[in-house]
Amino acid sequence: MNIELVNTGSELLLGRVLNTHQQWICRQLSDHGYTVNRQVAIGDGSQDIRNAVREALERADLVITTGGLGPTCDDVTRERIAELLQRKLLHIPEVEEAIRRYFESRGRTPPAKTRVESFVPEGADWLKNQFGTAPGLVISVDPNTFRASGERSLLVMLPGPPRELRPMFRDQVLPLLAREFPRTDGFVCRTLKTTGLGESLMEERLEAPLKPLVEGGMELGFCARMGEVDVRFVAIGPRAESIVAEAERLTLESAGEFVFGSGDDQLESVLVQEMSARCQTLALAESCTGGHIANRITNVPGASAVLLAGLVTYHNDAKIQLLGVLPATLAAHGAVSEPVAREMAEGARRVTGADFALAVTGVAGPGGGSKEKPVGTVFLALSSIEGTIVLKQLNAFERETFKHLTTQQALAMLRRAVLETSPALA
Amino acid sequence: MNIELVNTGSELLLGRVLNTHQQWICRQLSDHGYTVNRQVAIGDGSQDIRNAVREALERADLVITTGGLGPTCDDVTRERIAELLQRKLLHIPEVEEAIRRYFESRGRTPPAKTRVESFVPEGADWLKNQFGTAPGLVISVDPNTFRASGERSLLVMLPGPPRELRPMFRDQVLPLLAREFPRTDGFVCRTLKTTGLGESLMEERLEAPLKPLVEGGMELGFCARMGEVDVRFVAIGPRAESIVAEAERLTLESAGEFVFGSGDDQLESVLVQEMSARCQTLALAESCTGGHIANRITNVPGASAVLLAGLVTYHNDAKIQLLGVLPATLAAHGAVSEPVAREMAEGARRVTGADFALAVTGVAGPGGGSKEKPVGTVFLALSSIEGTIVLKQLNAFERETFKHLTTQQALAMLRRAVLETSPALA
Repeated sequence: MNIELVNTGSELLLGRVLNTHQQWICRQLSDHGYTVNRQVAIGDGSQDIRNAVREALERADLVITTGGLGPTCDDVTRERIAELLQRKLLHIPEVEEAIRRYFESRGRTPPAKTRVESFVPEGADWLKNQFGTAPGLVISVDPNTFRASGERSLLVMLPGPPRELRPMFRDQVLPLLAREFPRTDGFVCRTLKTTGLGESLMEERLEAPLKPLVEGGMELGFCARMGEVDVRFVAIGPRAESIVAEAERLTLESAGEFVFGSGDDQLESVLVQEMSARCQTLALAESCTGGHIANRITNVPGASAVLLAGLVTYHNDAKIQLLGVLPATLAAHGAVSEPVAREMAEGARRVTGADFALAVTGVAGPGGGSKEKPVGTVFLALSSIEGTIVLKQLNAFERETFKHLTTQQALAMLRRAVLETSPALA
Repeated sequence: MNIELVNTGSELLLGRVLNTHQQWICRQLSDHGYTVNRQVAIGDGSQDIRNAVREALERADLVITTGGLGPTCDDVTRERIAELLQRKLLHIPEVEEAIRRYFESRGRTPPAKTRVESFVPEGADWLKNQFGTAPGLVISVDPNTFRASGERSLLVMLPGPPRELRPMFRDQVLPLLAREFPRTDGFVCRTLKTTGLGESLMEERLEAPLKPLVEGGMELGFCARMGEVDVRFVAIGPRAESIVAEAERLTLESAGEFVFGSGDDQLESVLVQEMSARCQTLALAESCTGGHIANRITNVPGASAVLLAGLVTYHNDAKIQLLGVLPATLAAHGAVSEPVAREMAEGARRVTGADFALAVTGVAGPGGGSKEKPVGTVFLALSSIEGTIVLKQLNAFERETFKHLTTQQALAMLRRAVLETSPALA
């Protein structure tokens, strides 16, 4: 099956925005067993759209376009494609009514120019837009229109805004593909998310146990992200589901302590969920990460049940005053040291009464390094009723990467301690 | 002039990585007066590369490819393009020597498989790779090879890793384009960064003052980002520099209070610089933004000269204990209220002794909203020696967008106050 993606938008070719649609749609498709063969980006408002879509329809079974369905003068995808397919644009009262209701629910009347969004190429199906106004469009392109092979193609047109496109794709396009292009061969793709072991060490650890499955045709993939490694299993055939389930079981057996989730799970979400289920609370004392840990945890809905407070004690006075770090400890060991990390964590726990307190102090750079404590040096401390442990790491990367990696290590450290406590209550 | 970009790499079409090359190269080109007409992404190791490059060479004066020049089995761009152009691959001792020196400087000998990188299509020029091994390649494609128009094309092939590609593009490709495709007409493109005024209001404000320049042919563009609007001026011709300078002067005159920088400036960097220059210090008291403000400020090298401490007082007890918010105020008005925002800011300033303290409290959602205080309600307070001001906003977006937009508003509020104080000392 041949799939092509056509992204429209002059801002893409002027380099003003990143093409996140490409990654997102390609990822969704590949996780469901479909591979995109080619992606094209072209500007608005030119014959380029017509040409690019025609060329894609000459080759592909499925063509997906993004953007250009809105009401402004540079939204021309709908018109250009109707011209290309020689179909009239018909007014669909049902779509106009959906747009009216969308505005009504926000206490507004639809601007006159949104009316254009209720025109649909003759014979097209439309996809409901739950988070905006322009519907998606689906057109079955007749055999022998463009393809030398004489086969028909399916053309799916999606609106540009991600918060409109993504739910529409997940809820309506994926089920449509399952009907129109069923994978009769059985296809299963799943990912386990891990942290705490590098890519090559993870590969080494899984090589022997997964060997029989890989030799039997299962695809095993590793994708290293900052402080994380994704382990991906792909199997095809009638036994695909049981093969991938077996691969997951063997991975948990061999490296379970590093697995924190699956699919799109994030470390902070899993952690908030695990701590909530145990009714555990958390306090943070951040120096070099400067609020990055607190920021990630508070990105998770429901974080307020877990996080009592985060103290970004950037200045030494703040460490003394807010966390009770002793001036003598700072003077004797410096702010980036094992004893200061320990006193920060213990102080944060004392001040807030949290079950766990996590503290980090390090040299984020680019300045501030020394021979004994080069840029990237960091101490991570975790305090709980069990006592306080301190971990030293060298994360010699530029500032933002340093903060992100240190945060990963801190969250992984906390998660290990959380899992060692009593099992979840809920 | 017609430019096309061809990105190779199966990981792009599997959705495993974002195509950052597209944005970066397109942005570089457009800032230098060149517009990309089409971008294509295709997988490794197939005829697709040959076809995509041939089609691009049928249309374009300049074709740029990225990726596939390395030493592994899926790096096939060099070979496929040599086939397409019917050119032999010749061994270039000078390139092999450069690769040897690259490894030598790192105390290593080159792996045998890197030798393939020293083979170059007959007649090609090569671009030095200062941060890796595979050289870039430049091929002048003879007239009448592919193009119906009979013109010649230039084909530039770049290695995939960004830290190799970017300096090679800036230092070698841009000067090459200036020689091969000189913009004899004079081209100037500059951007002013603004915050605090929406896109359409900014457009309204600049319309009249910039009208004469726009009517004279200057291009005026607006790009709305979350809480920011970029204003872009493009002029062509011998007077381009003075036209853009005049547009910048008029913009500062009409909307200067919203302009915080130019080019790639970020609000937090500008702010840290302005506060450092005035020897001013800052404290933060964040509830709903959960450390996002602190995180952005501490991303800036040198932030430690400005930020004394950030207090993420997520729980009410933390607001009382760490910031001295009165229990009675919380009981009477609730945590998301004007009086609590005020007491948080004043408390943070009192506790840390900072010149400025910024506080935010709001409903980030998805839960926690009410009829009086719907999700997105937020109070921003700024305390200084001048007193305390409080701003109410409704940022009804999903959680992470809410945090980002609220942070923009908080930083913009702080910046206005900083600029009202004495001018910079340094």
